[in-house]
Amino acid sequence: MLESPNGETRLFPIIGDPIIYVKSPERLTSGFATRGHNGICIPMQVAEGDLDGVMDGLSRISNIDGLLVTMPHKFAAHEYCATSSERARLLKVVSVMRRNPDGSWHGDMLDGLAFVKAQIDAGARPDGARVLLVGAGGAGSAIAIALLESGVRELVIHDANEDRAAELMALVGGSGLGRVIVGPPDPSGCDLVCNATPLGMGDGDILPVAADLLDRSMFVGDVIAGHGTTPFLHAASAAGCKTASGDEMVEAVQEMMLDFMLGK
Amino acid sequence: MLESPNGETRLFPIIGDPIIYVKSPERLTSGFATRGHNGICIPMQVAEGDLDGVMDGLSRISNIDGLLVTMPHKFAAHEYCATSSERARLLKVVSVMRRNPDGSWHGDMLDGLAFVKAQIDAGARPDGARVLLVGAGGAGSAIAIALLESGVRELVIHDANEDRAAELMALVGGSGLGRVIVGPPDPSGCDLVCNATPLGMGDGDILPVAADLLDRSMFVGDVIAGHGTTPFLHAASAAGCKTASGDEMVEAVQEMMLDFMLGK
Repeated sequence: MLESPNGETRLFPIIGDPIIYVKSPERLTSGFATRGHNGICIPMQVAEGDLDGVMDGLSRISNIDGLLVTMPHKFAAHEYCATSSERARLLKVVSVMRRNPDGSWHGDMLDGLAFVKAQIDAGARPDGARVLLVGAGGAGSAIAIALLESGVRELVIHDANEDRAAELMALVGGSGLGRVIVGPPDPSGCDLVCNATPLGMGDGDILPVAADLLDRSMFVGDVIAGHGTTPFLHAASAAGCKTASGDEMVEAVQEMMLDFMLGK
Repeated sequence: MLESPNGETRLFPIIGDPIIYVKSPERLTSGFATRGHNGICIPMQVAEGDLDGVMDGLSRISNIDGLLVTMPHKFAAHEYCATSSERARLLKVVSVMRRNPDGSWHGDMLDGLAFVKAQIDAGARPDGARVLLVGAGGAGSAIAIALLESGVRELVIHDANEDRAAELMALVGGSGLGRVIVGPPDPSGCDLVCNATPLGMGDGDILPVAADLLDRSMFVGDVIAGHGTTPFLHAASAAGCKTASGDEMVEAVQEMMLDFMLGK
């Protein structure tokens, strides 16, 4: 059973916009309880232009031990980290932050690792695969490097913002891992198709990849969490594809986040 | 049973220094649950010099609907309120803040009312009484006006900082209620003796009033909460006085706070 917070409770806010769909307050709080730690994850609705003031304020609250960062703040939050993991430094993106002994922030990026773990757990085989990744923002960048680290042979990156796709290609293409190209959102010949855009959160959103280009040889993954089965995953299932949703990624990331927040 | 926070949870932080002794996170969170409101009260450790940055940050987090303010911020927090109750305006002190429709803050001061309610519930009769009040800070100021409102005949105010005592006398003495004077911390001839200083929180603290001046005709109240029976209340009990602790005041204030936060 969950305990109520008390005066000694340590805080781990999650900041984002919109925040109401996040599952971390329930999952991480429950995880802290399971591990016997008096900590709580609380949602904080923070608009993009308010990040600077909010980070200044939260940094001054000394029982805040960690922060979870979700859209649209994952790029900007990296700027507030005095130290970070190598992959976070490469991507200039963070999904989690914890205090250094001097009170400054240490950042890391766990989303990509968790996304790939969710695909593998659901039956995908990224090792040696050809992959279409749609979306080169914070989540897409982290997924790109995690896919390459898991042995992807060729990674095709697409983003409606062509410059952003080219930038991500330049960034991860030089890693010495698999081949990385920019291309259209066409999954033909791909073993794995990944949506890392917000498409699917809004009612009138188009699909990130045209449904009639999907076939049963493809594994389809989506980052959207908290919206049930997205229209994109519906279309993928209808085409006979195996799928993994953003909810499964959120589940995979939880233990990673707990370890990180508790300094393990 | 308490629910875990989720993405839609509304936040009601309590800010103070030290924060670890506060009971509001447990009590208010439980009160929200009883009333069926998805709200949570969380502790925030905020040093005096950090209030400005913290208030700016918290004001930008739009699922923060209310704030509880404890020492040492009760005076300073009034400055962040666009509107406030008449008693908060008079005292320039707030203990609670909630959002106005435009997102700005509305403040009120409930501590004094709750303190007096705790004394009466424990057997004190302030109506017509002579009262010694030690401590003219945020809590003391609120208690002074609440005592006068409850019919006190003569209020003797003492503070180690003489200017502060004189300022409070000037402030509440003109209210047209009972007589208000500044005096030494001597309870002789008083029916009610109230500690509104932090003395009793530290291990080596002196007593706010010398123990050998207390006698069984006096009712003795203390604002210190979360420290069990303070040395001052121990001495009062040994002298045969009836007493009320800060914990009883905290209990009295809870329903008042819930009403305030939910706009009632």
